[in-house]
Amino acid sequence: MQATTQTQPPSQPATTYPPTDRTVPTRSPDRASYDKELVHSILDEGYVCHLGFVRDGSPVVLPTLYGRIGERLYVHGSTGSRPLRMTGAADPGLPVCLTVTHVDALVLARSAFHHSINYRSVVVHGTAYDVTDPEEKRTALDALVDHVVPGRSADSRPADKKELAATAVIRLDLDEVSAKLRTGGVNDEPEDLALPHWAGLVPLRKGYDAPVADPGLDAGTELPDYLSAP
Amino acid sequence: MQATTQTQPPSQPATTYPPTDRTVPTRSPDRASYDKELVHSILDEGYVCHLGFVRDGSPVVLPTLYGRIGERLYVHGSTGSRPLRMTGAADPGLPVCLTVTHVDALVLARSAFHHSINYRSVVVHGTAYDVTDPEEKRTALDALVDHVVPGRSADSRPADKKELAATAVIRLDLDEVSAKLRTGGVNDEPEDLALPHWAGLVPLRKGYDAPVADPGLDAGTELPDYLSAP
Repeated sequence: MQATTQTQPPSQPATTYPPTDRTVPTRSPDRASYDKELVHSILDEGYVCHLGFVRDGSPVVLPTLYGRIGERLYVHGSTGSRPLRMTGAADPGLPVCLTVTHVDALVLARSAFHHSINYRSVVVHGTAYDVTDPEEKRTALDALVDHVVPGRSADSRPADKKELAATAVIRLDLDEVSAKLRTGGVNDEPEDLALPHWAGLVPLRKGYDAPVADPGLDAGTELPDYLSAP
Repeated sequence: MQATTQTQPPSQPATTYPPTDRTVPTRSPDRASYDKELVHSILDEGYVCHLGFVRDGSPVVLPTLYGRIGERLYVHGSTGSRPLRMTGAADPGLPVCLTVTHVDALVLARSAFHHSINYRSVVVHGTAYDVTDPEEKRTALDALVDHVVPGRSADSRPADKKELAATAVIRLDLDEVSAKLRTGGVNDEPEDLALPHWAGLVPLRKGYDAPVADPGLDAGTELPDYLSAP
Protein backbone atom coordinates (compact mmCIF):
# COMPACT_ATOMS: atom_id res chain seq x y z
CA MET A 1 0.00 0.00 0.00
CA GLN A 2 1.25 3.48 -0.84
CA ALA A 3 -0.91 5.46 1.54
CA THR A 4 1.72 8.08 2.21
CA THR A 5 1.17 11.79 1.94
CA GLN A 6 3.95 13.82 0.40
CA THR A 7 5.14 16.74 2.47
CA GLN A 8 5.74 19.80 0.33
CA PRO A 9 7.40 23.10 1.22
CA PRO A 10 4.54 25.51 2.00
CA SER A 11 5.49 27.87 -0.82
CA GLN A 12 5.29 25.17 -3.49
CA PRO A 13 2.02 23.73 -4.73
CA ALA A 14 1.83 19.94 -4.34
CA THR A 15 2.85 18.06 -7.46
CA THR A 16 0.90 14.93 -6.50
CA TYR A 17 -2.60 14.06 -5.30
CA PRO A 18 -2.63 12.53 -1.81
CA PRO A 19 -3.56 8.83 -2.10
CA THR A 20 -6.72 7.72 -0.30
CA ASP A 21 -8.39 4.38 0.38
CA ARG A 22 -10.35 4.81 -2.83
CA THR A 23 -7.41 5.69 -5.04
CA VAL A 24 -4.90 3.07 -3.90
CA PRO A 25 -5.64 -0.02 -6.03
CA THR A 26 -5.83 -3.43 -4.40
CA ARG A 27 -3.99 -4.90 -7.40
CA SER A 28 -0.81 -3.78 -9.20
CA PRO A 29 -0.16 -0.70 -7.02
CA ASP A 30 3.07 -0.27 -9.02
CA ARG A 31 0.90 0.77 -11.97
CA ALA A 32 -0.71 3.61 -10.01
CA SER A 33 0.46 7.23 -10.06
CA TYR A 34 -0.66 10.38 -8.29
CA ASP A 35 1.45 12.76 -10.35
CA LYS A 36 -0.56 15.83 -11.33
CA GLU A 37 1.24 16.44 -14.63
CA LEU A 38 0.65 12.84 -15.71
CA VAL A 39 -3.01 13.02 -14.67
CA HIS A 40 -3.49 16.28 -16.58
CA SER A 41 -1.87 14.88 -19.72
CA ILE A 42 -4.13 11.80 -19.68
CA LEU A 43 -7.22 13.93 -19.10
CA ASP A 44 -6.30 16.44 -21.81
CA GLU A 45 -5.80 13.71 -24.44
CA GLY A 46 -9.28 12.20 -24.04
CA TYR A 47 -12.45 13.19 -25.85
CA VAL A 48 -14.99 11.35 -23.73
CA CYS A 49 -15.08 10.49 -20.05
CA HIS A 50 -17.28 7.87 -18.41
CA LEU A 51 -19.27 9.47 -15.63
CA GLY A 52 -20.59 7.16 -12.93
CA PHE A 53 -23.27 8.01 -10.39
CA VAL A 54 -25.83 6.17 -8.29
CA ARG A 55 -29.51 6.34 -9.20
CA ASP A 56 -32.11 4.56 -7.07
CA GLY A 57 -29.28 2.56 -5.51
CA SER A 58 -27.92 1.28 -8.82
CA PRO A 59 -24.80 2.38 -10.69
CA VAL A 60 -25.13 4.33 -13.94
CA VAL A 61 -22.19 4.96 -16.30
CA LEU A 62 -22.65 7.42 -19.16
CA PRO A 63 -20.14 8.67 -21.74
CA THR A 64 -19.91 12.43 -21.95
CA LEU A 65 -17.66 15.26 -23.10
CA TYR A 66 -15.63 17.16 -20.52
CA GLY A 67 -13.17 20.00 -20.14
CA ARG A 68 -10.45 20.89 -17.65
CA ILE A 69 -9.42 24.24 -16.18
CA GLY A 70 -6.54 23.76 -13.76
CA GLU A 71 -7.65 21.45 -10.99
CA ARG A 72 -11.31 21.43 -11.97
CA LEU A 73 -13.23 19.34 -14.50
CA TYR A 74 -16.45 20.41 -16.20
CA VAL A 75 -19.17 18.29 -17.74
CA HIS A 76 -22.11 19.79 -19.59
CA GLY A 77 -25.39 18.62 -20.93
CA SER A 78 -28.99 19.51 -21.43
CA THR A 79 -30.70 20.83 -18.30
CA GLY A 80 -33.10 17.90 -18.77
CA SER A 81 -30.54 15.09 -18.66
CA ARG A 82 -30.49 12.85 -15.61
CA PRO A 83 -27.10 13.44 -13.97
CA LEU A 84 -27.38 17.19 -14.57
CA ARG A 85 -30.87 17.35 -13.09
CA MET A 86 -29.56 15.41 -10.10
CA THR A 87 -27.06 18.18 -9.24
CA GLY A 88 -29.67 20.93 -9.23
CA ALA A 89 -29.87 23.72 -6.67
CA ALA A 90 -32.03 21.66 -4.35
CA ASP A 91 -29.36 18.99 -4.22
CA PRO A 92 -26.23 19.00 -2.05
CA GLY A 93 -24.11 17.75 -4.96
CA LEU A 94 -23.92 14.39 -6.67
CA PRO A 95 -21.25 11.80 -5.71
CA VAL A 96 -19.59 10.75 -8.95
CA CYS A 97 -16.67 8.78 -10.31
CA LEU A 98 -15.27 10.15 -13.57
CA THR A 99 -12.94 7.92 -15.57
CA VAL A 100 -10.90 8.57 -18.73
CA THR A 101 -9.07 5.73 -20.48
CA HIS A 102 -6.72 5.51 -23.47
CA VAL A 103 -5.90 2.16 -25.04
CA ASP A 104 -2.40 2.48 -26.48
CA ALA A 105 -1.52 -1.05 -27.61
CA LEU A 106 -2.67 -4.65 -27.54
CA VAL A 107 -0.17 -6.88 -25.74
CA LEU A 108 -0.07 -10.35 -27.31
CA ALA A 109 1.77 -12.84 -25.14
CA ARG A 110 2.61 -16.45 -25.94
CA SER A 111 0.31 -17.49 -23.08
CA ALA A 112 -3.37 -16.57 -23.01
CA PHE A 113 -2.95 -15.56 -19.35
CA HIS A 114 -0.43 -12.81 -20.08
CA HIS A 115 -2.45 -11.13 -22.82
CA SER A 116 -3.06 -7.54 -21.84
CA ILE A 117 -3.30 -4.00 -23.14
CA ASN A 118 -1.12 -0.99 -22.66
CA TYR A 119 -3.38 1.72 -21.34
CA ARG A 120 -3.44 4.97 -19.39
CA SER A 121 -6.43 5.83 -17.26
CA VAL A 122 -7.45 8.44 -14.71
CA VAL A 123 -10.12 7.88 -12.07
CA VAL A 124 -11.55 10.89 -10.22
CA HIS A 125 -13.74 10.46 -7.14
CA GLY A 126 -15.70 13.38 -5.79
CA THR A 127 -18.90 15.36 -5.64
CA ALA A 128 -20.21 17.19 -8.69
CA TYR A 129 -21.89 20.56 -8.24
CA ASP A 130 -24.08 22.62 -10.51
CA VAL A 131 -22.27 25.68 -11.90
CA THR A 132 -24.51 28.69 -11.27
CA ASP A 133 -22.09 31.59 -11.73
CA PRO A 134 -22.63 32.88 -15.31
CA GLU A 135 -18.96 33.77 -15.79
CA GLU A 136 -17.73 30.36 -14.60
CA LYS A 137 -20.32 28.70 -16.83
CA ARG A 138 -19.16 30.63 -19.89
CA THR A 139 -15.52 29.86 -19.19
CA ALA A 140 -16.35 26.20 -18.62
CA LEU A 141 -18.20 25.95 -21.94
CA ASP A 142 -15.21 27.47 -23.73
CA ALA A 143 -13.01 24.86 -22.03
CA LEU A 144 -15.33 22.10 -23.20
CA VAL A 145 -15.08 23.24 -26.83
CA ASP A 146 -11.33 23.80 -26.58
CA HIS A 147 -10.94 20.35 -25.08
CA VAL A 148 -12.25 18.81 -28.31
CA VAL A 149 -10.11 21.08 -30.55
CA PRO A 150 -7.68 23.46 -28.81
CA GLY A 151 -8.30 27.03 -29.97
CA ARG A 152 -11.73 26.29 -31.37
CA SER A 153 -13.86 28.32 -28.93
CA ALA A 154 -12.34 31.57 -30.25
CA ASP A 155 -13.31 30.49 -33.79
CA SER A 156 -17.02 29.84 -33.29
CA ARG A 157 -20.10 31.81 -32.35
CA PRO A 158 -20.39 31.93 -28.52
CA ALA A 159 -23.54 30.63 -26.88
CA ASP A 160 -26.38 33.13 -26.67
CA LYS A 161 -28.67 33.61 -23.66
CA LYS A 162 -31.15 30.97 -24.75
CA GLU A 163 -28.43 28.40 -25.41
CA LEU A 164 -26.77 29.16 -22.07
CA ALA A 165 -30.09 28.68 -20.28
CA ALA A 166 -30.62 25.31 -21.98
CA THR A 167 -27.18 24.05 -20.95
CA ALA A 168 -26.32 22.77 -17.51
CA VAL A 169 -22.69 22.57 -16.42
CA ILE A 170 -21.38 20.65 -13.44
CA ARG A 171 -17.95 20.89 -11.89
CA LEU A 172 -15.79 18.30 -10.19
CA ASP A 173 -12.60 19.24 -8.37
CA LEU A 174 -9.46 17.18 -8.84
CA ASP A 175 -8.81 16.22 -5.22
CA GLU A 176 -9.11 12.44 -5.01
CA VAL A 177 -7.44 11.31 -8.19
CA SER A 178 -5.23 8.53 -9.47
CA ALA A 179 -3.76 7.47 -12.77
CA LYS A 180 -3.14 3.85 -13.63
CA LEU A 181 -1.11 2.67 -16.57
CA ARG A 182 0.53 -0.29 -18.19
CA THR A 183 3.46 0.36 -20.49
CA GLY A 184 6.22 -1.76 -21.93
CA GLY A 185 6.39 -5.13 -23.61
CA VAL A 186 5.24 -8.71 -23.23
CA ASN A 187 5.63 -10.41 -19.82
CA ASP A 188 5.68 -14.12 -20.66
CA GLU A 189 6.88 -16.81 -18.29
CA PRO A 190 10.48 -17.88 -19.00
CA GLU A 191 9.37 -21.43 -19.84
CA ASP A 192 6.99 -20.09 -22.52
CA LEU A 193 9.55 -18.07 -24.48
CA ALA A 194 10.28 -20.87 -26.95
CA LEU A 195 6.63 -21.49 -27.81
CA PRO A 196 5.85 -21.02 -31.52
CA HIS A 197 3.25 -18.26 -30.99
CA TRP A 198 3.95 -14.75 -32.29
CA ALA A 199 4.24 -12.27 -29.43
CA GLY A 200 4.52 -8.50 -29.36
CA LEU A 201 2.69 -5.21 -29.26
CA VAL A 202 0.00 -4.02 -31.63
CA PRO A 203 -0.11 -0.20 -31.32
CA LEU A 204 -3.52 1.39 -31.85
CA ARG A 205 -3.82 4.25 -34.31
CA LYS A 206 -4.22 7.73 -32.81
CA GLY A 207 -5.19 11.15 -34.10
CA TYR A 208 -7.60 11.92 -36.88
CA ASP A 209 -8.04 11.60 -40.61
CA ALA A 210 -8.61 14.42 -43.09
CA PRO A 211 -11.43 16.74 -41.99
CA VAL A 212 -14.60 16.68 -44.11
CA ALA A 213 -16.11 20.13 -44.70
CA ASP A 214 -19.84 20.69 -44.18
CA PRO A 215 -21.52 20.66 -47.63
CA GLY A 216 -23.08 24.04 -46.84
CA LEU A 217 -19.75 25.70 -46.07
CA ASP A 218 -19.23 29.05 -47.80
CA ALA A 219 -16.81 28.69 -50.72
CA GLY A 220 -13.47 30.10 -49.71
CA THR A 221 -13.70 29.13 -46.03
CA GLU A 222 -10.29 27.60 -45.47
CA LEU A 223 -9.43 24.78 -43.13
CA PRO A 224 -8.13 26.47 -39.97
CA ASP A 225 -4.51 26.00 -38.94
CA TYR A 226 -5.51 24.16 -35.78
CA LEU A 227 -6.93 21.36 -37.95
CA SER A 228 -4.42 21.21 -40.78
CA ALA A 229 -1.64 19.40 -38.96
CA PRO A 230 -3.12 16.51 -36.98
CA MET B 1 -40.93 7.88 -24.73
CA GLN B 2 -40.53 4.62 -26.61
CA ALA B 3 -41.55 2.23 -23.85
CA THR B 4 -43.12 -0.30 -26.18
CA THR B 5 -42.36 -4.00 -26.15
CA GLN B 6 -42.09 -5.66 -29.54
CA THR B 7 -44.24 -8.71 -29.98
CA GLN B 8 -42.38 -11.48 -31.79
CA PRO B 9 -43.69 -14.77 -33.21
CA PRO B 10 -42.86 -17.44 -30.59
CA SER B 11 -40.60 -19.36 -32.97
CA GLN B 12 -38.39 -16.33 -33.64
CA PRO B 13 -35.94 -14.96 -31.09
CA ALA B 14 -36.49 -11.28 -30.33
CA THR B 15 -34.33 -8.97 -32.40
CA THR B 16 -34.52 -6.11 -29.90
CA TYR B 17 -34.06 -5.63 -26.16
CA PRO B 18 -37.25 -4.50 -24.41
CA PRO B 19 -36.82 -0.87 -23.30
CA THR B 20 -37.06 -0.17 -19.57
CA ASP B 21 -37.14 2.95 -17.41
CA ARG B 22 -33.36 2.73 -17.13
CA THR B 23 -32.68 2.31 -20.84
CA VAL B 24 -35.01 4.96 -22.26
CA PRO B 25 -33.01 8.21 -22.21
CA THR B 26 -34.59 11.39 -20.93
CA ARG B 27 -32.87 13.32 -23.75
CA SER B 28 -32.63 12.64 -27.49
CA PRO B 29 -34.65 9.39 -27.44
CA ASP B 30 -34.33 9.39 -31.24
CA ARG B 31 -30.65 8.55 -30.76
CA ALA B 32 -31.45 5.39 -28.76
CA SER B 33 -31.69 1.90 -30.23
CA TYR B 34 -32.53 -1.51 -28.79
CA ASP B 35 -31.49 -3.49 -31.85
CA LYS B 36 -29.50 -6.57 -30.84
CA GLU B 37 -27.35 -6.66 -33.98
CA LEU B 38 -26.38 -3.02 -33.54
CA VAL B 39 -25.63 -3.55 -29.85
CA HIS B 40 -23.48 -6.61 -30.63
CA SER B 41 -21.53 -4.75 -33.33
CA ILE B 42 -20.75 -1.86 -30.95
CA LEU B 43 -19.72 -4.25 -28.18
CA ASP B 44 -17.55 -6.37 -30.48
CA GLU B 45 -15.65 -3.35 -31.80
CA GLY B 46 -14.52 -2.14 -28.37
CA TYR B 47 -11.40 -3.11 -26.45
CA VAL B 48 -12.25 -1.71 -23.05
CA CYS B 49 -15.54 -1.26 -21.24
CA HIS B 50 -16.18 0.99 -18.26
CA LEU B 51 -17.63 -1.05 -15.43
CA GLY B 52 -19.59 0.85 -12.80
CA PHE B 53 -20.57 -0.46 -9.39
CA VAL B 54 -21.39 0.96 -5.97
CA ARG B 55 -18.91 0.63 -3.13
CA ASP B 56 -19.76 1.98 0.33
CA GLY B 57 -22.56 3.98 -1.27
CA SER B 58 -20.31 5.71 -3.81
CA PRO B 59 -19.99 5.05 -7.53
CA VAL B 60 -16.81 3.46 -8.91
CA VAL B 61 -16.02 3.31 -12.64
CA LEU B 62 -13.10 1.15 -13.78
CA PRO B 63 -11.86 0.38 -17.29
CA THR B 64 -11.52 -3.32 -18.01
CA LEU B 65 -11.33 -5.86 -20.84
CA TYR B 66 -14.41 -7.87 -21.71
CA GLY B 67 -15.67 -10.56 -24.04
CA ARG B 68 -19.06 -11.55 -25.45
CA ILE B 69 -20.60 -14.94 -26.08
CA GLY B 70 -24.09 -14.55 -27.51
CA GLU B 71 -26.21 -12.65 -25.02
CA ARG B 72 -23.68 -12.75 -22.20
CA LEU B 73 -20.70 -10.55 -21.40
CA TYR B 74 -17.68 -11.64 -19.40
CA VAL B 75 -15.20 -9.55 -17.45
CA HIS B 76 -12.13 -11.02 -15.84
CA GLY B 77 -9.53 -9.94 -13.37
CA SER B 78 -7.40 -11.02 -10.49
CA THR B 79 -9.31 -12.79 -7.75
CA GLY B 80 -8.00 -10.01 -5.49
CA SER B 81 -9.44 -7.06 -7.42
CA ARG B 82 -12.31 -5.15 -5.85
CA PRO B 83 -15.28 -5.70 -8.19
CA LEU B 84 -14.39 -9.37 -8.63
CA ARG B 85 -14.10 -9.94 -4.89
CA MET B 86 -17.49 -8.26 -4.50
CA THR B 87 -19.19 -10.91 -6.67
CA GLY B 88 -17.84 -13.82 -4.63
CA ALA B 89 -19.83 -16.89 -3.62
CA ALA B 90 -21.04 -15.23 -0.42
CA ASP B 91 -22.57 -12.43 -2.45
CA PRO B 92 -25.90 -12.48 -4.28
CA GLY B 93 -24.36 -10.79 -7.30
CA LEU B 94 -23.15 -7.24 -7.87
CA PRO B 95 -25.38 -4.59 -9.50
CA VAL B 96 -23.33 -3.09 -12.32
CA CYS B 97 -23.57 -0.78 -15.29
CA LEU B 98 -21.23 -1.67 -18.15
CA THR B 99 -20.66 0.93 -20.87
CA VAL B 100 -18.74 0.77 -24.16
CA THR B 101 -18.21 3.91 -26.25
CA HIS B 102 -16.65 4.62 -29.64
CA VAL B 103 -15.85 8.17 -30.69
CA ASP B 104 -16.14 8.27 -34.47
CA ALA B 105 -15.76 11.94 -35.36
CA LEU B 106 -15.56 15.42 -33.91
CA VAL B 107 -18.43 17.61 -35.08
CA LEU B 108 -17.32 21.23 -35.48
CA ALA B 109 -20.26 23.58 -35.88
CA ARG B 110 -20.19 27.31 -36.58
CA SER B 111 -21.74 27.87 -33.15
CA ALA B 112 -20.08 26.67 -29.93
CA PHE B 113 -23.44 25.30 -28.80
CA HIS B 114 -23.74 22.82 -31.67
CA HIS B 115 -20.28 21.33 -31.28
CA SER B 116 -20.64 17.62 -30.71
CA ILE B 117 -19.13 14.24 -31.46
CA ASN B 118 -20.35 11.36 -33.53
CA TYR B 119 -20.31 8.36 -31.24
CA ARG B 120 -21.79 4.93 -30.68
CA SER B 121 -22.27 3.64 -27.15
CA VAL B 122 -23.89 0.69 -25.41
CA VAL B 123 -25.05 0.77 -21.81
CA VAL B 124 -25.84 -2.52 -20.05
CA HIS B 125 -27.61 -2.59 -16.68
CA GLY B 126 -27.73 -5.77 -14.65
CA THR B 127 -26.27 -7.98 -11.98
CA ALA B 128 -22.83 -9.55 -12.37
CA TYR B 129 -22.25 -13.06 -11.05
CA ASP B 130 -19.10 -15.01 -10.34
CA VAL B 131 -18.49 -17.76 -12.92
CA THR B 132 -17.82 -20.96 -10.99
CA ASP B 133 -18.31 -23.63 -13.67
CA PRO B 134 -14.80 -24.53 -14.93
CA GLU B 135 -15.97 -25.11 -18.50
CA GLU B 136 -17.81 -21.78 -18.69
CA LYS B 137 -14.78 -20.05 -17.19
CA ARG B 138 -12.45 -21.54 -19.79
CA THR B 139 -14.79 -20.60 -22.64
CA ALA B 140 -15.15 -17.09 -21.23
CA LEU B 141 -11.38 -16.60 -21.03
CA ASP B 142 -11.05 -17.70 -24.66
CA ALA B 143 -13.73 -15.17 -25.56
CA LEU B 144 -11.83 -12.44 -23.70
CA VAL B 145 -8.64 -13.16 -25.68
CA ASP B 146 -10.54 -13.49 -28.97
CA HIS B 147 -12.28 -10.20 -28.26
CA VAL B 148 -8.92 -8.41 -28.34
CA VAL B 149 -7.75 -10.25 -31.49
CA PRO B 150 -10.22 -12.64 -33.16
CA GLY B 151 -8.68 -16.08 -33.53
CA ARG B 152 -5.91 -15.44 -31.03
CA SER B 153 -6.98 -17.87 -28.27
CA ALA B 154 -6.28 -20.85 -30.57
CA ASP B 155 -2.76 -19.46 -31.17
CA SER B 156 -1.58 -19.12 -27.57
CA ARG B 157 -0.88 -21.39 -24.61
CA PRO B 158 -4.15 -21.93 -22.70
CA ALA B 159 -4.25 -21.04 -19.01
CA ASP B 160 -2.99 -23.77 -16.67
CA LYS B 161 -4.59 -24.72 -13.34
CA LYS B 162 -2.68 -22.16 -11.33
CA GLU B 163 -3.49 -19.36 -13.76
CA LEU B 164 -7.18 -20.36 -13.84
CA ALA B 165 -7.28 -20.32 -10.04
CA ALA B 166 -5.77 -16.83 -9.94
CA THR B 167 -8.32 -15.46 -12.39
CA ALA B 168 -11.86 -14.52 -11.49
CA VAL B 169 -14.48 -14.19 -14.20
CA ILE B 170 -17.85 -12.52 -13.83
CA ARG B 171 -20.76 -12.70 -16.23
CA LEU B 172 -23.45 -10.18 -17.09
CA ASP B 173 -26.45 -11.10 -19.21
CA LEU B 174 -27.59 -8.78 -21.99
CA ASP B 175 -31.17 -8.19 -20.83
CA GLU B 176 -31.46 -4.49 -20.04
CA VAL B 177 -29.48 -2.90 -22.83
CA SER B 178 -29.55 0.15 -25.06
CA ALA B 179 -27.36 1.69 -27.71
CA LYS B 180 -27.13 5.41 -28.23
CA LEU B 181 -25.51 7.04 -31.21
CA ARG B 182 -25.01 10.27 -33.07
CA THR B 183 -24.24 10.09 -36.76
CA GLY B 184 -24.36 12.56 -39.63
CA GLY B 185 -23.19 16.07 -40.15
CA VAL B 186 -23.25 19.51 -38.56
CA ASN B 187 -26.57 20.86 -37.22
CA ASP B 188 -26.10 24.61 -37.21
CA GLU B 189 -28.94 27.10 -36.92
CA PRO B 190 -30.03 28.49 -40.31
CA GLU B 191 -29.02 32.02 -39.31
CA ASP B 192 -25.47 30.83 -38.53
CA LEU B 193 -24.75 29.22 -41.91
CA ALA B 194 -23.08 32.31 -43.35
CA LEU B 195 -20.69 32.78 -40.42
CA PRO B 196 -17.02 32.68 -41.42
CA HIS B 197 -16.10 29.71 -39.19
CA TRP B 198 -15.03 26.44 -40.78
CA ALA B 199 -17.52 23.66 -40.03
CA GLY B 200 -17.46 19.95 -40.68
CA LEU B 201 -16.51 16.53 -39.38
CA VAL B 202 -13.09 15.43 -38.16
CA PRO B 203 -13.05 11.61 -38.37
CA LEU B 204 -10.93 9.86 -35.74
CA ARG B 205 -8.42 7.25 -36.89
CA LYS B 206 -9.34 3.62 -36.26
CA GLY B 207 -7.52 0.30 -36.35
CA TYR B 208 -3.88 -0.31 -35.53
CA ASP B 209 -0.39 0.42 -36.77
CA ALA B 210 2.27 -2.14 -37.69
CA PRO B 211 2.73 -4.76 -34.95
CA VAL B 212 6.05 -4.69 -33.06
CA ALA B 213 7.50 -8.15 -32.38
CA ASP B 214 8.76 -9.02 -28.89
CA PRO B 215 12.59 -8.70 -28.93
CA GLY B 216 12.82 -12.26 -27.57
CA LEU B 217 10.74 -13.75 -30.37
CA ASP B 218 12.27 -16.85 -31.98
CA ALA B 219 13.73 -16.00 -35.39
CA GLY B 220 11.43 -17.31 -38.06
CA THR B 221 8.19 -16.75 -36.11
CA GLU B 222 6.07 -15.05 -38.72
CA LEU B 223 3.39 -12.46 -38.13
CA PRO B 224 0.12 -14.42 -38.06
CA ASP B 225 -2.48 -13.80 -40.77
CA TYR B 226 -4.96 -12.40 -38.25
CA LEU B 227 -2.56 -9.49 -37.65
CA SER B 228 -1.21 -8.84 -41.13
CA ALA B 229 -4.25 -7.08 -42.58
CA PRO B 230 -5.55 -4.59 -40.03
